[in-house]
Parts: sequence; structure tokens; C-alpha cells
Amino acid sequence: MIRKLRPEDRAGWQQLYQGYQAFYGFHERPAEFYDKAFARLMAADTRDFHGFVADVDGQLLGLVHYVFHPNLWRDEGVCYLQDLFTAPEARGKGVARGLIEQVYAAADKAGVPAVYWLTAEDNYAGRMLYDRVAVKSPFIRYNRKV
Amino acid sequence: MIRKLRPEDRAGWQQLYQGYQAFYGFHERPAEFYDKAFARLMAADTRDFHGFVADVDGQLLGLVHYVFHPNLWRDEGVCYLQDLFTAPEARGKGVARGLIEQVYAAADKAGVPAVYWLTAEDNYAGRMLYDRVAVKSPFIRYNRKV
Amino acid sequence: MIRKLRPEDRAGWQQLYQGYQAFYGFHERPAEFYDKAFARLMAADTRDFHGFVADVDGQLLGLVHYVFHPNLWRDEGVCYLQDLFTAPEARGKGVARGLIEQVYAAADKAGVPAVYWLTAEDNYAGRMLYDRVAVKSPFIRYNRKV
Amino acid sequence: MIRKLRPEDRAGWQQLYQGYQAFYGFHERPAEFYDKAFARLMAADTRDFHGFVADVDGQLLGLVHYVFHPNLWRDEGVCYLQDLFTAPEARGKGVARGLIEQVYAAADKAGVPAVYWLTAEDNYAGRMLYDRVAVKSPFIRYNRKV
Repeated sequence: MIRKLRPEDRAGWQQLYQGYQAFYGFHERPAEFYDKAFARLMAADTRDFHGFVADVDGQLLGLVHYVFHPNLWRDEGVCYLQDLFTAPEARGKGVARGLIEQVYAAADKAGVPAVYWLTAEDNYAGRMLYDRVAVKSPFIRYNRKV
Repeated sequence: MIRKLRPEDRAGWQQLYQGYQAFYGFHERPAEFYDKAFARLMAADTRDFHGFVADVDGQLLGLVHYVFHPNLWRDEGVCYLQDLFTAPEARGKGVARGLIEQVYAAADKAGVPAVYWLTAEDNYAGRMLYDRVAVKSPFIRYNRKV
Repeated sequence: MIRKLRPEDRAGWQQLYQGYQAFYGFHERPAEFYDKAFARLMAADTRDFHGFVADVDGQLLGLVHYVFHPNLWRDEGVCYLQDLFTAPEARGKGVARGLIEQVYAAADKAGVPAVYWLTAEDNYAGRMLYDRVAVKSPFIRYNRKV
Repeated sequence: MIRKLRPEDRAGWQQLYQGYQAFYGFHERPAEFYDKAFARLMAADTRDFHGFVADVDGQLLGLVHYVFHPNLWRDEGVCYLQDLFTAPEARGKGVARGLIEQVYAAADKAGVPAVYWLTAEDNYAGRMLYDRVAVKSPFIRYNRKV
């Protein structure tokens, strides 16, 4: 079952989010990184992030975080799906697809149907799914040098 | 001179923004597309878009639009540079670089130093500049199918 | 066992090669396409293609074809691995890796250690392996318009 | 005028080829690198490399090197355009386009119409031309680790 993230999900959510951060090489985020992110997800601020989790008999198997933000080309803005993660033992069962589709539904309900995300070019496992539920654009990301 | 976009820039700004939209294949945006975008840029809403222009003796030679939006990994959020355009006759003179650097300065002032943008993989002329003032990430964009 | 392709492999080889051609969208190659390719592989011409197959108890589970060709930057030339295919039911067992490594060994024996191949950017399953046994270069292929 | 490379072109050819090698980061090729390459180009071996140069009033402004090699999918093989370079001071005048088109003509004459080349993804200036005279394929190159 895909459902909204709830306060009692704190421990299970963090385990998943740590897995996601590790995938991108961030193995040692401080505790406060997770505290702040969870607090923001719980704040229900329409301009900040929201989260869904895949809950199977009380066990959390996946998460997704998204936010609506302005876009000058569209009055209603766009929906940015920033984080998506499935527990390694639950892969290949449609969890990630279900999470993405729940974001699509939430975006439609909010009147912001344009959903997008960014992924590493070599995130092969992710892209196998993304090519089925979305369309690769020709756009690549540049970051200011730090 | 790079300066903030002002109400009296309406005509010159639209000419530039039409050139930018045409670059991405949108040759026939309705008048209200430009009306709305300009109104938003003038509203000075800290959560919506802002603009700078390159003004040389009263002639507008380039524009840039940016917005701050939340990011779950960073408390202060990020700065998205959505639109950047230099008039064809003014290319190769540092206009685009100046516009990007002005966004960097504005982002620093706002306490949101992480600036990013997206560009088409085959925007060769743009990327010649971007490789000098920024870093290509391995991230590519996926869009929900429409 | 990875071994050289032999005349008696004709039927099993064609089944594999048809699977490979279908992967790239060529479902209807005429019979002579396969006749000619097999004849060339059997000719043992040092300047034409060679093949290896993965033979498990007499069943062919994978193939690889390679050729040596001149390169102006290297006296000894280079080795182009053009075709690589594993039967769908035999995936994830190291067959493709074994075939690639056999080509590496043959290339070393021939004094032509530089082996390369081309693959579609979205051949995710292949690239999961290639990233382990080789290095992605920044080079992309352009073809004359037909 | 685009014409075949000739023995008396040795000095002018090397100046161009050094510029090309430097573009790819090879600033210090030994003298014998150039000796061998030139000797091979002069040998008129149908299985080895051939060259054309752009000669304007006796000054060499560009070069191209190509070779025919086997391809298992095509009886007649393919034509690999390995090296292409225009003197910096002669850019934007159609020299590179003329060199590519001469290779196309030579390939047609040889009955090997399929011409291809590889280029770095960020060779923006080159790709501006290549997108006009050829088609970017989705194929990327992997190299054996050295």
C-alpha cells in the first residue's frame, strides 16, 4: 500500500532514506540531516516537501519525496520528485513504480500535472523503470562550481 | 551593465524572451504568455521568479530569470536559473557570463549559494560557456509523459 | 566453456545471432545474412571476423564476434568487438563477461591489446557489465546520413 | 581545394596533425609517431589509412584520415574517419565540411558508403558541423581498461 508518510514512520523512513543517501555516496549524514528532513516532511507546508511510503504489513519498503515549485513557463508550476528509493530486498515488485504513480496522482490533484526528476546517467536500474513511466528529455544539469 | 529587470523594460525584454522561446521551438507563444511572465517578474515575490538584464546604453542585450525553491537536502534551498538568453548580435562579448555571475551574486546575498540550470545536451554554444562557469553533472532529466 | 566457434555450431549460433539482431530491431534478416556471416567467421582470415561461443554441455549460451583493424595512432591496430549476446535464459551467470575476457586474451595473444566496442546509451543491462570490465569513454558515434 | 595527401606535404601535414593530437591532449608525440603515420598514409595500401588535405594556394589548412575495415553486418565493410582537423585560422569557412564530403565521395567510389566517426561528447565546435553533415547515433564507446 502506498500512503502518506506519517509521524510513526520515523525509524523505518530513516532506514530507507539512509540507503538512498548512500546510493549517492553520502554514507555519513549527521543525525540532524534526517531530523530536519523528517520535520519538513511532517510540516504539511504546501510549498515544501511531501512524502509517500510503500507500507507492506507495517514494513516500509520504499519512499518518495516531492515538492511543487514555480516555473516561469507554467502558471501552475511544476512538481519535482527529488528522492525515490526502494529497499534492496523489495526490488522488482513494482514498489518504485507505485510510488511514482502516487506522485502523479497527487500532482494531478494539486493541478500541477508536470512532474519531473533528475537521475544519474548511469543509474541503469532506475532508468529501466523511468523509460517505462516517463520520457528521457535531452536536458542535462549544470551546477555552479563550489 | 547587468541590472534588475524594470517595468520600462517590457518591450525590450519581450523581444529577447521571444528569441529564447524560439530557440527551444516555441515560436508562437500567445501574448498572455509574455504578459504573465513579466507580471510575475515584476511582483518581487521572494518565492517567485526574478530577472536581470544586460543594458548597454539603454538597449537590452540579454536576460536571465531565476527562482529559489526548496530542496530536501539543503535547509536554505537552491537557486534554479531557468532562462538565459543573449541577443544574437551581442554574442561572444561576455553578456551571458555576466548574467550568470549576477545570479551567483544574488544567490549568495540570499544565502542560497547552490545555483543550477538545465540545458539541452546539444546546446553547444551554451555549453562552451557553461563548462567555464559551472560544472556539468551526470544528472539527466526525465519528464512525466504527457 | 568459452571456445572458438566451429562449423558444427551453425544452428545454435544462428539462434543466438538472431536474438542479438532482434535486440537492435532487426527481426527479419534474410537467410543469406546469416549464411555470409557464418562463412566469414569460419574462413579464419586474420583480417576478418572471429568468433567465440559459450558452450555448456553442448548448448550454446552466448556468442562474441571481433575483428582487428588498423588505427593510425597505433602500429599494431585495435580490436573491435562488434557483437556480444547471451541467451536470455543464461543471463546473470557470467557468460558475457567470460566472452569479453576471451576476446581480451585473444587480443593479447595477437599483440593488439586495445579492445573496444560500441553500445547503445540505453543498453542498461549491458552497461552494468561493461562498467565493470571496461571504461566508458566520452566518445559518441556519428553516422553519415543515408 | 581538397586533394589527396602527397609526399611533399610532409611538413604542412605534420603541423596540422600536431594540432589535432594536441586537441586530444597529446602534446608530446615523439617524432616517430608522425614518421610512421605519414609513411602509412603514403603507402597506398587499400587496407590501411588514406588522407586528404585542404590546399589553399599551397598552404595546408586541414586534413582528414580514413580507413576501410570489415563489419560483420555488411559485406562491403565500413569507412572509419579517424582524424579530422582544420587549422585554427581557417575555421568557419567550410574546410572540415569539404574534407568530410571528400571522404564520402571516396567511400562511394570504393563501394563502401557507410562512413562513421567518433567524437568526444563535448567537442561542441565539431558537433555543430557533424549535426549538419551526419547523424548522431545513440552509440557510445567502451574501452578495455589499460
